[in-house]
Amino acid sequence: MTQSIAAHPDRLLPAEPAVRDIARSLYKQVAGLPIISPHGHVDAGVIQNNVPFPDPAALLVTPDHYVTRLIHAGGTSMDQLGLGAAPADSRQIWKHFSAAWPQFEGTASGYWIRQEFEHVFGVREEPTVENADRIFDAISAKLAEPGFRPRELFKDFNIEVLATTDDPLDELASHRALAEDPSFHGRVLPTFRPDAYINVAHASWARNVERLIAAAGDGAKGYRGYITALENRRRYFVEHGAVSADHGVRTPATLKLDAAEAEHLFEKARAGKASAADRDAFEAHMMYQMARMSVEDGLVMTIHPGSYRNHHSPTFEAYGPDTGHDIPVAVNYTEGIRPLLQDFGTAKDFHLVLFTLDETVFSRELAPLAGFYPSVYVGAPWWFLDAPDAMLRFRAAVTETAGFSRSSGFIDDTRAFCSIPARHDTSRRIESAFLARLVVEHRISEERAHELIVDIVDSSPRRVFKL
Amino acid sequence: MTQSIAAHPDRLLPAEPAVRDIARSLYKQVAGLPIISPHGHVDAGVIQNNVPFPDPAALLVTPDHYVTRLIHAGGTSMDQLGLGAAPADSRQIWKHFSAAWPQFEGTASGYWIRQEFEHVFGVREEPTVENADRIFDAISAKLAEPGFRPRELFKDFNIEVLATTDDPLDELASHRALAEDPSFHGRVLPTFRPDAYINVAHASWARNVERLIAAAGDGAKGYRGYITALENRRRYFVEHGAVSADHGVRTPATLKLDAAEAEHLFEKARAGKASAADRDAFEAHMMYQMARMSVEDGLVMTIHPGSYRNHHSPTFEAYGPDTGHDIPVAVNYTEGIRPLLQDFGTAKDFHLVLFTLDETVFSRELAPLAGFYPSVYVGAPWWFLDAPDAMLRFRAAVTETAGFSRSSGFIDDTRAFCSIPARHDTSRRIESAFLARLVVEHRISEERAHELIVDIVDSSPRRVFKL
Amino acid sequence: MTQSIAAHPDRLLPAEPAVRDIARSLYKQVAGLPIISPHGHVDAGVIQNNVPFPDPAALLVTPDHYVTRLIHAGGTSMDQLGLGAAPADSRQIWKHFSAAWPQFEGTASGYWIRQEFEHVFGVREEPTVENADRIFDAISAKLAEPGFRPRELFKDFNIEVLATTDDPLDELASHRALAEDPSFHGRVLPTFRPDAYINVAHASWARNVERLIAAAGDGAKGYRGYITALENRRRYFVEHGAVSADHGVRTPATLKLDAAEAEHLFEKARAGKASAADRDAFEAHMMYQMARMSVEDGLVMTIHPGSYRNHHSPTFEAYGPDTGHDIPVAVNYTEGIRPLLQDFGTAKDFHLVLFTLDETVFSRELAPLAGFYPSVYVGAPWWFLDAPDAMLRFRAAVTETAGFSRSSGFIDDTRAFCSIPARHDTSRRIESAFLARLVVEHRISEERAHELIVDIVDSSPRRVFKL
Repeated sequence: MTQSIAAHPDRLLPAEPAVRDIARSLYKQVAGLPIISPHGHVDAGVIQNNVPFPDPAALLVTPDHYVTRLIHAGGTSMDQLGLGAAPADSRQIWKHFSAAWPQFEGTASGYWIRQEFEHVFGVREEPTVENADRIFDAISAKLAEPGFRPRELFKDFNIEVLATTDDPLDELASHRALAEDPSFHGRVLPTFRPDAYINVAHASWARNVERLIAAAGDGAKGYRGYITALENRRRYFVEHGAVSADHGVRTPATLKLDAAEAEHLFEKARAGKASAADRDAFEAHMMYQMARMSVEDGLVMTIHPGSYRNHHSPTFEAYGPDTGHDIPVAVNYTEGIRPLLQDFGTAKDFHLVLFTLDETVFSRELAPLAGFYPSVYVGAPWWFLDAPDAMLRFRAAVTETAGFSRSSGFIDDTRAFCSIPARHDTSRRIESAFLARLVVEHRISEERAHELIVDIVDSSPRRVFKL
Repeated sequence: MTQSIAAHPDRLLPAEPAVRDIARSLYKQVAGLPIISPHGHVDAGVIQNNVPFPDPAALLVTPDHYVTRLIHAGGTSMDQLGLGAAPADSRQIWKHFSAAWPQFEGTASGYWIRQEFEHVFGVREEPTVENADRIFDAISAKLAEPGFRPRELFKDFNIEVLATTDDPLDELASHRALAEDPSFHGRVLPTFRPDAYINVAHASWARNVERLIAAAGDGAKGYRGYITALENRRRYFVEHGAVSADHGVRTPATLKLDAAEAEHLFEKARAGKASAADRDAFEAHMMYQMARMSVEDGLVMTIHPGSYRNHHSPTFEAYGPDTGHDIPVAVNYTEGIRPLLQDFGTAKDFHLVLFTLDETVFSRELAPLAGFYPSVYVGAPWWFLDAPDAMLRFRAAVTETAGFSRSSGFIDDTRAFCSIPARHDTSRRIESAFLARLVVEHRISEERAHELIVDIVDSSPRRVFKL
Repeated sequence: MTQSIAAHPDRLLPAEPAVRDIARSLYKQVAGLPIISPHGHVDAGVIQNNVPFPDPAALLVTPDHYVTRLIHAGGTSMDQLGLGAAPADSRQIWKHFSAAWPQFEGTASGYWIRQEFEHVFGVREEPTVENADRIFDAISAKLAEPGFRPRELFKDFNIEVLATTDDPLDELASHRALAEDPSFHGRVLPTFRPDAYINVAHASWARNVERLIAAAGDGAKGYRGYITALENRRRYFVEHGAVSADHGVRTPATLKLDAAEAEHLFEKARAGKASAADRDAFEAHMMYQMARMSVEDGLVMTIHPGSYRNHHSPTFEAYGPDTGHDIPVAVNYTEGIRPLLQDFGTAKDFHLVLFTLDETVFSRELAPLAGFYPSVYVGAPWWFLDAPDAMLRFRAAVTETAGFSRSSGFIDDTRAFCSIPARHDTSRRIESAFLARLVVEHRISEERAHELIVDIVDSSPRRVFKL
């Protein structure tokens, strides 16, 4: 049996002993703070209904595209991982995962899974083909215990706030039920995510828009009904505790069109006649509109651009979206976001969090933007960049221009509920590591570092996301 | 009272003890060398007239857009920082700065200000709202002392060469007076900066060109007079000690047009009929012309591209340029600079220093260019990149391809006179840190590192800027 | 005499003592493994004919554009380095090299040369103008010894596999002779490199295509004969031991045209009427075709895009290609490679190795692509990026997303035969350094690191290049 290294108290802390000492003491100060998760993809119904998680493969492998993609790269098919139409045997999926485990060495997913195994399920072995059945059984047994139901884990994980991501027409019944349940003490907040109503290229855009106008357009038709309906649904989300609206867009382009131009594009798109340029213009215009609404209703605006979605069409057609082949592209925030910032960049209480998968914009564009505009915050390193070395590069790239006060605080962005503690723990260790280096290099005092680590882990997300 | 960490003798040196030991010894060798500042924005009149600096806010806050931008990001208005039309109380501005001080933690400006406070003004406390009045009074008292006049500080700072940045029609009276003053021992050199006469988009371009031709066109009109006048004024600058011509351009594009094409664009622009493409082409052509003139008159050519100037129009309209919202964009040097290098890249004694705010071009484009063309030097990390970690990234990105001999040496690029020693000191420490790592990794010998640190700090700027 | 530092057993290992200890032990495990070189530019005839190398300048300076470019940047002309039409005195060239030696401090070439001097030729001094004659004589003497002939060095260097780069019409006589020679125990494999038959902009493209069709088109004419001939020649290479086909392209663009469209472009190009856009489209289409053929015949496909070839036309016209002024540009792999991956990304046993000179695509594009597509491997850092710090950045950028199993293993890509051991040794040290940091940071176990270092150095290139 190979001993796991998840348990090492100094994992992810820097090698140099003096730096490590300080990092350890900084980490200790925040290790036990509650988890604030202002952006993620857990289903509120899972918490509300509190049904036991299914088997280990259905919990940890099949739905997590961070995991399936790398096993797929190693030659295992999506079908073998349970993503096909035909049902796959969970125990068999687990064997594939176990066989592929060495591929995760050195990856962020590898770090999370290892910690999750040990700290959530008490599994101290590295997965292998040999122990696959044994670990499968051990985790299955845990999942059957009452202490492993979602609400109990929510409490055990010390989650204070968990934001979900929701369709604008969602009635948010689970969120309401949780808010009204006196036996539940966490905050589970919805997030307004209107992509499928804004991105004209989306397969069901026209149908979505139809439904949206019918449901919330106050009787108005066409573009006016559409805008009204979005405003109404945002208000509905605010009334149900939402603090932010999230936007997954192709590029960071924004554009201010007058109402007539916008209406023209809107009707062209509904008639199925929009060109690619029309679609881009409409999406860019709607980002401008979303900012205007955020200024009015107070929802924090978060933007996640720069991912080429569903890069491999045959996989998309067979297995659907979010199957591991969204591939980043370069982005141009400086020019793209300018029309929006011209009008709203200094608007009172407007918060705009800019995320990127293109690291080059951290020092070149995002830190300078956040270092001037009161509304702009640099989003934490996200997705492929949510990893120890990438986080250190992020801090080094952003801090010298924008300091510590202009970034968003950690977001886990995950649908893998059981990985949440490991993700936040990783971030806390790396933030401690970064600050410790600055202390030993006499750039900041140890006293200030102890204040900053709390600010980064706890105060920043509360302040930026208006919690 | 919080003890400042500016005074720590090891500040900015690397954590690992063996590396730090060597870094310390390298730094010691250059800590006391004179300051060579071949590019900056101090007004020569300030030195010549030697009038006492005004109050602390007018010296350290209001005119420094590195500082005001971050306070602005924190929610303080430009008016409150003294940038508006209405006069603002200096003591009140100082309070805003003091309240915002924690935002500067970890930033390059923070490091400079801290060192400036302690080493120039003897202030050992971190600014706070509580001590704002006290520190304001302490610095004010210093500024009233004779030893704190510009010429005395120039000497104290051990500045040997200070280049200013000047309008082509400037008569350079202050430079001449200083050069002729037997009581002044430094060199204050003008720099030819013709942007406002070349960039057609500049608000007063047509008027500037008119004045230029009238003043120095030798009677010629139109494009021919314009070129003649630029040549004449460059010669005038050379006669007054200038060693370089500096160019702030939107992109690094260059273009060789024949005289007829150039004249056509020039007249179109004067008639107010130039398109955006015309303007870009004319600017690119003029970069080619500036290189030609540099080859002829020997002025070192420096190019600073890739900043989207005045990103937030409302701020620009209310407070003017250089108010903290020039935001970098990606640049393409390899293709852009090629037409210029085709004809002048191997020209005898031509020196071309290429700066960037887009870090990605250091390893990809600038080091390969400087590793082949005898004329090309990689400009030191500039503006947002003039910061400890960014400098280390620069060295790591450039050195393995281009060695140490193909970079410009440090430039401070500042209008904040009192920050000059802190900026150069930061650079010397970081260069020492980089070399020390190579020594401990047995990449260079300690003996060579001791030669290289002197070459980098002292010989490089003299050689590259022909001092 | 200055003592060389090439011999230091810890060269290139990290400074921190605990990390260095582990790095040293990892390095020890692989230091003696045979050299696998699946991509390079050594001429097979040199090994086959086993003629002694000429003098030191002709061996180490004139043909190595990594070396001549930097001496050229320092002001020495190509003629003085022996690249002109007129013969140059080797001893004089050696003096220029020796005078320029300090410029190589801190460069990858500097590290290789230093190690080569000491480990191949037993020269322990740093080159200087003073010792130029002495070192020239010492190396010359060695080159005259029987032990310094190519085949003896091949054995001494412990090279197991050496791939060359060859013209599609090459008869591969040297490769065959070596394979059939019972006294030679290495493997010298050809590589199919069809650039000059695919890139329409190539000066002799039309003539090359003519010859190709005549030689191997099976009697078919035009586009069909062209495709047939390429297929035939690939098969010929496979029969002579080739394992890969290499493609140096301007961009990573790929495109699927139907046969009629392709034929139209092909004939337009042969008629000398292809526009730049036509040429790009044809090259992109041919990359798609090359992938199709690789899927069919099993040759690993390697792509080297993003270099602006022959940047300085006057140098190209006077001295030809590969003279040190190929300058990288930014690339867009995500969109460019997509058409190819749509059809072949998941094809069985297809191996596609993607190289880059634009570091930004490592974390943004290549790691995500290789982390999903079973065919895609991230190429080792190449050319300007084949250097210690760049290699560490590569590993840090790629590993957290793609792990260790999705990269190509080291390639030396060199025509400088005697530098091969130094290049591989550098890579082994840096891989050890990277893994050692992960061990000390408790990211991987020491046991796993010992397995991974062997996998990276030995198993990866065998697996990826089907050796």
